[in-house]
Amino acid sequence: MNTEKKPIYPIQVWDITEQEFKRENNYRNETTFALSNGYIGTRGTFEEAYPFDIDTGLEGNFVNGFYESEHIRYGEANFGSPLLSQSLLNLPNLKEIRVMLDGELFSMEEGSVEEYSRTLHMKEGILERKLVWTSSLGHKTKIRISRLVSFARKNIMVIQYQVTPLNYSGKIRFASKLEADVENHTRKTNPIVDYGPFGRRLLKTCIRTGQDRSYYEGTTKGSHLTMACGSAHEIFRGTQSVDREDLWNGEQGEWSAVLSAEVEAKEGETITLDKFICYTTELDMPKEELESFVNQELSDALQEGYACLKEKQKTYMESFWKTADVKIKGNEALQQGIHFNLYHILQAAGRDGKTGMGAKGLSGEGYEGHYFWDTEMYVLPVLVYTEPQAARQLLDYRYGTLEQARKRARILGHEKGALYPWRTINGEEASTYYPLGTAQYHINADIAYALSLYLQVTGDVEYLKEKGAEILIETARVWADVGSFAECRDGKYCICDVTGPDEYNVLVDNNFYTNLMARENLRHGVETVEYLEKNAPECLKRLEEKLDFSVEETGLWKKIVENMYFPYDEKRKIYPMDDGFMMRKPWDETKIPPEKRAWLYENYHPLFIMRHRMSKQADAILGMYLHSHLFTEEEIRRNYDFYQEVTLHHSSLSTCIFGIVACDIGYLDTGYEYFSQSARMDLDDYHNNFYAGIHAANMAGTWQAIVNGFAGMRCQESELRFKPAIPKEWEAYSFRLKYRGTLLEVSISKEEAKFTILEGENISFRIGTKEITLNGEGDCYVEKI
Amino acid sequence: MNTEKKPIYPIQVWDITEQEFKRENNYRNETTFALSNGYIGTRGTFEEAYPFDIDTGLEGNFVNGFYESEHIRYGEANFGSPLLSQSLLNLPNLKEIRVMLDGELFSMEEGSVEEYSRTLHMKEGILERKLVWTSSLGHKTKIRISRLVSFARKNIMVIQYQVTPLNYSGKIRFASKLEADVENHTRKTNPIVDYGPFGRRLLKTCIRTGQDRSYYEGTTKGSHLTMACGSAHEIFRGTQSVDREDLWNGEQGEWSAVLSAEVEAKEGETITLDKFICYTTELDMPKEELESFVNQELSDALQEGYACLKEKQKTYMESFWKTADVKIKGNEALQQGIHFNLYHILQAAGRDGKTGMGAKGLSGEGYEGHYFWDTEMYVLPVLVYTEPQAARQLLDYRYGTLEQARKRARILGHEKGALYPWRTINGEEASTYYPLGTAQYHINADIAYALSLYLQVTGDVEYLKEKGAEILIETARVWADVGSFAECRDGKYCICDVTGPDEYNVLVDNNFYTNLMARENLRHGVETVEYLEKNAPECLKRLEEKLDFSVEETGLWKKIVENMYFPYDEKRKIYPMDDGFMMRKPWDETKIPPEKRAWLYENYHPLFIMRHRMSKQADAILGMYLHSHLFTEEEIRRNYDFYQEVTLHHSSLSTCIFGIVACDIGYLDTGYEYFSQSARMDLDDYHNNFYAGIHAANMAGTWQAIVNGFAGMRCQESELRFKPAIPKEWEAYSFRLKYRGTLLEVSISKEEAKFTILEGENISFRIGTKEITLNGEGDCYVEKI
Repeated sequence: MNTEKKPIYPIQVWDITEQEFKRENNYRNETTFALSNGYIGTRGTFEEAYPFDIDTGLEGNFVNGFYESEHIRYGEANFGSPLLSQSLLNLPNLKEIRVMLDGELFSMEEGSVEEYSRTLHMKEGILERKLVWTSSLGHKTKIRISRLVSFARKNIMVIQYQVTPLNYSGKIRFASKLEADVENHTRKTNPIVDYGPFGRRLLKTCIRTGQDRSYYEGTTKGSHLTMACGSAHEIFRGTQSVDREDLWNGEQGEWSAVLSAEVEAKEGETITLDKFICYTTELDMPKEELESFVNQELSDALQEGYACLKEKQKTYMESFWKTADVKIKGNEALQQGIHFNLYHILQAAGRDGKTGMGAKGLSGEGYEGHYFWDTEMYVLPVLVYTEPQAARQLLDYRYGTLEQARKRARILGHEKGALYPWRTINGEEASTYYPLGTAQYHINADIAYALSLYLQVTGDVEYLKEKGAEILIETARVWADVGSFAECRDGKYCICDVTGPDEYNVLVDNNFYTNLMARENLRHGVETVEYLEKNAPECLKRLEEKLDFSVEETGLWKKIVENMYFPYDEKRKIYPMDDGFMMRKPWDETKIPPEKRAWLYENYHPLFIMRHRMSKQADAILGMYLHSHLFTEEEIRRNYDFYQEVTLHHSSLSTCIFGIVACDIGYLDTGYEYFSQSARMDLDDYHNNFYAGIHAANMAGTWQAIVNGFAGMRCQESELRFKPAIPKEWEAYSFRLKYRGTLLEVSISKEEAKFTILEGENISFRIGTKEITLNGEGDCYVEKI
Repeated sequence: MNTEKKPIYPIQVWDITEQEFKRENNYRNETTFALSNGYIGTRGTFEEAYPFDIDTGLEGNFVNGFYESEHIRYGEANFGSPLLSQSLLNLPNLKEIRVMLDGELFSMEEGSVEEYSRTLHMKEGILERKLVWTSSLGHKTKIRISRLVSFARKNIMVIQYQVTPLNYSGKIRFASKLEADVENHTRKTNPIVDYGPFGRRLLKTCIRTGQDRSYYEGTTKGSHLTMACGSAHEIFRGTQSVDREDLWNGEQGEWSAVLSAEVEAKEGETITLDKFICYTTELDMPKEELESFVNQELSDALQEGYACLKEKQKTYMESFWKTADVKIKGNEALQQGIHFNLYHILQAAGRDGKTGMGAKGLSGEGYEGHYFWDTEMYVLPVLVYTEPQAARQLLDYRYGTLEQARKRARILGHEKGALYPWRTINGEEASTYYPLGTAQYHINADIAYALSLYLQVTGDVEYLKEKGAEILIETARVWADVGSFAECRDGKYCICDVTGPDEYNVLVDNNFYTNLMARENLRHGVETVEYLEKNAPECLKRLEEKLDFSVEETGLWKKIVENMYFPYDEKRKIYPMDDGFMMRKPWDETKIPPEKRAWLYENYHPLFIMRHRMSKQADAILGMYLHSHLFTEEEIRRNYDFYQEVTLHHSSLSTCIFGIVACDIGYLDTGYEYFSQSARMDLDDYHNNFYAGIHAANMAGTWQAIVNGFAGMRCQESELRFKPAIPKEWEAYSFRLKYRGTLLEVSISKEEAKFTILEGENISFRIGTKEITLNGEGDCYVEKI
């Protein structure tokens, strides 16, 4: 990882700007400028639809939750290996707009381009491109294109395309296309995937044009899912709508539909095309309703118009930043990095309760678009404090897939309970390599943890009763079955043959993180059942019936909570990652050629990797961060010192966590160093793989590094605490968080930490041993640092 | 496993006889009556070539070492996963002979069949079918067909087809076919294999007929290997050769060649067709020479004639049985089982130094025809004492593939040494699932063990110098690299992330068997180097140069030998199978439906299987058998008692070993019970999968169960010992073995064990603490029991 990289884009705290279009940067920049609202995702490709090869660009348009399935082949299949893949499918592209300017086709690769900029306005949620183009005949045209994927309208994205002839008058002709001849770039974006999707997978069931509208409907070959999309258009001369009956001319081919329109423009006059695009799928409605839905959505959007949608977008973003923004005084580059990260995680999260969040959001095809634990352990804890409604919708997705998780648990031999899939879109396990997949049982506890955190921070008791309790009980049941009280470990409860977060140590016994998280999952299970017994017996009764559950089961859970086994090294007084970790061969990185160091699985056999004493990423340390109240600072420090020696940080999920724990134990400078590696990781493409999509977990980890790290915020056992500090490099920083309905602002300077209620009634928290309670808006507390 | 099965065939100590042809038994009986000479393998299909479906029969003809490759696809590929498969390829069938008896085609499924028998004459090495057939027109014909695959001529098999019209005179027409439209039945024989081979994989390069000859040459699509086969014919009326210029009429189609001949037969006159068949491949000679080689071989075989080849076959078999036969007085069923087992392992073993031995010999497509450790740990120890020349040739195969093993070691990250493949044909790893494949590092030590045993038993020092030392050094080097001295285990040498023989406990740390075998491998490595230093410095020098080896490396080896770590349970005073075994969840078989019990991997996820405390097969116990001199009887008993409780014997490699160890510790009745489960396992098809091929390892294990078990024979540290006992069910038993050039007979009755030199100069051995030396042929020693 190259953290010495110079900033790729100019330092602008609220904007990301490309100042020159270069082919070699295109693939990466398509991710940088990707837009999404958690449902539609579209990569930052151009309206001109340049024919990039597989290494230069990917015209990517996605709908969260919409996937294609392929038959998976295995060298040797195991019982329970998924037989059908789930891949986020690349959908028809509707962004394409070609413009003939008085007979000359606009292309940035011909003529000359001046005053070029492409800017992601993170404050407004809008992508804007501006340039002045001089054609080969010398015609100068000012071009301005804005694009937004609407947070207000789940199914809508809009492009506003404006041209102004600067030194000529003539015909402006728009050809607005719907291109359905699209395919995933699996060989490039998921090179280890052998099953596809390859080629065109969406079979057309309908393509048509009519008036200013295009419409397409297609069904996937493998998953047999139907999606629909369409566009509607309006052209303005100046501010005047061009309302001609015969304005639009539709043509449809086998796999595309083009709507063309021509208007006269005088020198200096601006012609505007507003293109409204709609996507939907049968996951949201009966197939028969798709077309009328698309038409209605497009009509509504047309009705509202671009200006109105843009305004709504701004309003939404304002509200988001109001809570989520983290302000840093003293480092604009980091400030920009944080905005970029927060912006992208906002975009990434499914918010309809039916979809989750891909590890790469909807910004690319990486990881096949799968949802992993990244959502619950990295992103959700940010949303819980900043967008609790969005956090809840992500939890809803897990609740909605409980049935698949129950079935999966049966396949793994558990008679009761639910086992969530390691990677999935539709709720079924999609991991084809179980040592790095299904063996990561910790996903169960991760989801339970995120849920518990949501409940603690929001106090949303209704959610517990309605959905949360069921998740907590079902996940706990698997923990109560997977291990056993081992005589050879003094009767302690041992969990064997799991893989923890650290993917270089697989199929281990008693992974510290897993055992810890499992115990807490069980503890919350017990507490939940006790809570329901006392406060909502009717709810408990419903669950007992629905789940064939008996309160007596918690007897075993309690016994496990009290007797969970943890590996311990008496000499070093640390918790080894697992039973066998200390026994492994010492790692000698000098034997690994530098170009292979960050790509071990690509260059070394798994057996070579797993027999060495080293770690890919935060594992035990992550557990100690999440449950820091259960360890002394001294204990955490010993473990941190040990693990920072053996951890290679080959996952983007690692440095942010080490940074937080470093802060916890007073290693502020180291914390800052780790944080710096996280904050601009994607923006400056440290891993050289941003083209494949964002690293959502690390992006969210940045927020955690500041709030949970520098400010030492934690919510544990329903108690909020801070341990404020400030890196010496900064003058001040501030952030806000929602806690049980109250909006708290935390401003930390070199001298003091100030806590102020911005909205809401009251809040209690702790700093060290001090208990602080604020009452009413404006009430504040200042702690000297 | 059903050990209560009634005998399938009549009890005849030297013969296996099918008394009635039934379709439903066909697939199984094709294996029972399969013939092989270690090079050509042909299943017991009929000359009539009945069109059986995929569940009823497989016309299988194989050549050892000749394989097809397919591109292997993986859900998620790992570095170092084999990309090309190796599958023993089903080759053109030349056994087909159709006979028109006075215009009526002979078929056992039409007309009526009387006096039917099909007999495998194990003493002679010949398969014979006899019957009297009455056609629908009432013509009665006596038919007798003999078949042999020649031990004297590697490339030759012969069919003698005799017909005698009993109540008519007429034309007898033979149509002798070469059928190249053949394919593997992968879906049936290797159902978990997803890559094939499917369909016809041998592309014809030449097919022709001429005179009484047919010839075919083909090249595989994937492995690009060429094979050739052909046939030559001779017809006799009575004993008189029918020598007509125009006797044979050749016709060739796209994928087949037919030679037809017609002769007149009088009532009572026997017409005989001798068909000589030859197979060879470019693995033995340049492609250009294949055709002339086949022609020459066929001419030579014709010249010798059937009678002569049959005689040579008998001579070969006599010589084999002379040493290998185990005689049991008091149980003919077991006697038959033992003959059957020994006969099939004789057939299975490659004996040209270039080929190994498939786990299913050449009797079927099971396990893709791969060679595993079964050869070295089960079969070779039998051959070492009975057919040392054959044992050496199997070792030659491993020596010949050292280069592939060296490359494999590099892929696994070892800078020095050689790592043998878990399953292979051409010497490269063909295991597509490394937890049950490459992780079985013990294969390295297994090969070293078999080699050491060969050297000890034969005293073949030249072999050590020429080839053996190189194998011992190269295997030892991998053991010296794979583990490390672990501080947390008092500086003992630990080997992590391997799979031992027990395939229900995978990727474990410190597998007892592996650590033990690795230590002995290293010890033999040290001893070998010391021996060479003293006795063959020029050989050592050659190896130092060839292998970039330094004697100093043995310093580390010695340190490991002295400090090998073994898991130990202080409370039970036993060696757990691995570090984590005692911690696993207790196994509760009552939760497994009976029909799934023997097929865990087919019905349960690997994680379910590996998290339970149970064992598929002999693992630690196997190590204690092989190195019993390193343990006290008390120790072995404790471990045996423990393991017999937790072992499910779901591998055919298990019961024979438990039987031996039971005898070792005086549990003679239990030993006998285990033995009984092994002895007729295949003959009575206990596993219901004999159709896919023999279980060669278990077959050899039967011999070991008697010789190493009941007679307590062991050769350890170059010392031969016996501990004779006799099961109460038997009156007496006897066997012979070759030890350093001496042929010893051991006869054990209820009263005494008698040891007699049959051939050779002298022999020393031990019974208990008694040292016995016999001198000269006929010298004998009697020990009272």
